[in-house]
Amino acid sequence: MTLNNNINDIAQYMQQIGIKARAASSILAAAETALKNKALNTIADLLIENKEWLKDENNKDLDAGKEKGLTSALLDRLALTDVGIDNMAEGLRQIASLPDPIGSIDNLSYRPSGIQIGQMRVPLGVIGIIYESRPNVTVDAAALCLKSGNSTILRGGSEAIHSNHAISECIQKGLLKVGLPTDSVQVIETTDRVAVGELLRLKDAVDVIIPRGGKGLIERVMKESLIPVIKHLDGICHVYIDDQADLEKAVKVAYNAKTQRYGTCNTMETLLVAERIAEKILPILADKYIDKGVELRGCEKTRAIVSNCKLATESDWGEEYLDAILSIKIVDGLDHAIEHINKYSSQHTDSIITQDYSKARRFLREVDSSSVMVNASTRFADGFEYGLGAEIGISTDKLHARGPVGLEGLTSVKYIVFGDGHIRQ
Amino acid sequence: MTLNNNINDIAQYMQQIGIKARAASSILAAAETALKNKALNTIADLLIENKEWLKDENNKDLDAGKEKGLTSALLDRLALTDVGIDNMAEGLRQIASLPDPIGSIDNLSYRPSGIQIGQMRVPLGVIGIIYESRPNVTVDAAALCLKSGNSTILRGGSEAIHSNHAISECIQKGLLKVGLPTDSVQVIETTDRVAVGELLRLKDAVDVIIPRGGKGLIERVMKESLIPVIKHLDGICHVYIDDQADLEKAVKVAYNAKTQRYGTCNTMETLLVAERIAEKILPILADKYIDKGVELRGCEKTRAIVSNCKLATESDWGEEYLDAILSIKIVDGLDHAIEHINKYSSQHTDSIITQDYSKARRFLREVDSSSVMVNASTRFADGFEYGLGAEIGISTDKLHARGPVGLEGLTSVKYIVFGDGHIRQ
Repeated sequence: MTLNNNINDIAQYMQQIGIKARAASSILAAAETALKNKALNTIADLLIENKEWLKDENNKDLDAGKEKGLTSALLDRLALTDVGIDNMAEGLRQIASLPDPIGSIDNLSYRPSGIQIGQMRVPLGVIGIIYESRPNVTVDAAALCLKSGNSTILRGGSEAIHSNHAISECIQKGLLKVGLPTDSVQVIETTDRVAVGELLRLKDAVDVIIPRGGKGLIERVMKESLIPVIKHLDGICHVYIDDQADLEKAVKVAYNAKTQRYGTCNTMETLLVAERIAEKILPILADKYIDKGVELRGCEKTRAIVSNCKLATESDWGEEYLDAILSIKIVDGLDHAIEHINKYSSQHTDSIITQDYSKARRFLREVDSSSVMVNASTRFADGFEYGLGAEIGISTDKLHARGPVGLEGLTSVKYIVFGDGHIRQ
Repeated sequence: MTLNNNINDIAQYMQQIGIKARAASSILAAAETALKNKALNTIADLLIENKEWLKDENNKDLDAGKEKGLTSALLDRLALTDVGIDNMAEGLRQIASLPDPIGSIDNLSYRPSGIQIGQMRVPLGVIGIIYESRPNVTVDAAALCLKSGNSTILRGGSEAIHSNHAISECIQKGLLKVGLPTDSVQVIETTDRVAVGELLRLKDAVDVIIPRGGKGLIERVMKESLIPVIKHLDGICHVYIDDQADLEKAVKVAYNAKTQRYGTCNTMETLLVAERIAEKILPILADKYIDKGVELRGCEKTRAIVSNCKLATESDWGEEYLDAILSIKIVDGLDHAIEHINKYSSQHTDSIITQDYSKARRFLREVDSSSVMVNASTRFADGFEYGLGAEIGISTDKLHARGPVGLEGLTSVKYIVFGDGHIRQ
């Protein structure tokens, strides 16, 4: 595969990619588990064998990135180090070791008519993945789709184009070696942004689009896609400390949910505290946050308790800081907390800290988010922590997959019926 | 509720409906099972109590329909008879007796981190249903959505407007009587077609649209909707008689799949026959079909065996007749049959007749349809036959629900996490 920014007709080029992906998908759907696993392990071997070459290709991207003035954070994400390549290979082997969801049959039972009916898990078909300049996503996404029997069209950030193509070559060689169609995984060869728009219009060829990246990318995809999208736009996560909370647990969880990592979508952005416990707990927590360098923005009542705290404005309640900033609001109690969460939460992850049985039950039932927790840090909302073995992203939608999306989120089920000449009366 | 075709601003009117539906949905999501069941049974009682009035209102529609020159088939569907009203009430009581899917928790297990994680079934939220002039759909759809904790916006065919409003009044009274929000079920008060377009744009208020009706309606909804749609466009269902088929079972199933009812989406439209068995089975089957008055349209090879058979054209393989017409194609064997099905099938329901174990397994895995059968009539593809207890429709999409959609298809799951002060390391 060679870089090709001189494709004349991008619409036609993308259509061809779609047709090839669809053709590969039916072979992949019927591929045996052992063959898919062999492909994954072979690709892992090839990544390790080609480590130096991968780093050379990556250096082209890094040099261009430096010239372009990318921030050091972006360059960090873009870099393929020895450890990074080892991790990609290890990720492939882990996905190979996961159980194959495809073809598994559930709920097989007899009906009074005599037919036996069940549900068989099947691939979705063709998955388009649009992501930013993180070359490791190329491997992750391809591996998850391959294992779940889906063919993939990958469109990574233009800054990673050399790295992605080098990785793609390893993937292609691996597929070829084990005898799976090389069109099972296709990396788009042009950095032209028009290709993204074309991909989002391939509704006959592509079954689902998964965007991975910042809010701008997700918003563009949501706006333009004619294909269903699995996504989360942002993560405005809450911890509510109830007046029946265990103080020690509350401090531990609320501190961890904000400070364990600032830039992740499952980090708490707003802390809600019940009025009756606020004077007791807020000074302790505020000290810890401030020691850690977290900027506090609170409601008037919070500011009456915590001196070193800016006044939060209405926009703070709907903002994903992804940074060392926390908004704090004192609420009357559980009803007020649920009301605030269902109004401002991005339906990602929200947690209650309480020892009260009935309040925990109500919070679980009435908070309408993809993960709802009791006495646990929002930072747990993650495919690995949930035991999915891998994660292609997190969905805050209600249709199809919701919450962290692993292999099963890339599948569908069809009904299967066994009869012996049975007819409808 | 009064008929209102003089609503000035339909966009604004529909927005209000959306806002009210969303508000009702959070109350409904938390409603206890017993209360939802009480509402369903109360509405059933009210339908029976108001039978005469319902028939009077229905007569207004029937009179207008006759004047408009509706066909007798359409008038039949529109009519509310004593038996029809009894059936609607019985349907409500049956849905009340089904288990409540909402709040059920699956896969609850401990993770190495110490957190306990599971998945809780929750409503989708607000469901918009667009259907033709069958008043019984008003009751069915409202009941399924209510039981699954969703609020509903119903838009029935304009010919049934008086009937739908009368039914709606019974529903409203029932909701009021048990103390559930009357906005849980809203029937759109205008017959203006603009209202449908507005409904399809309410993407913040409505979570999913379910169209029920002919191809024209479904196509309009697919084209205009900004909201995810659960639908099937058509039902081009196949039976493939393999050369290893048991002759008696093959004749029984292939005859039933076509003739048990002509107008249903799970009726066979194309019969595929393996070349090696064609001369043996086709004459028997053709006689039976012709006796029953079924018009046969076959490939050249079929016509060489069956004299009373028109020549099928390319367009026959992709047509849903919904009538006493059958297309027949002789294929080389299993590969050819699967190829034909995956090309022309509408991914609704396809069946193989064979005694061969390996071919049955391959057909099940490789045919990409929402129901795949072995030695059974396609006519079984139905929510009641599958034991779902009820059916809001059939989905041929792969995302979210696939195949017959019952209560579970109107729900989502969210992750729930129990900790005891657990934090992420």
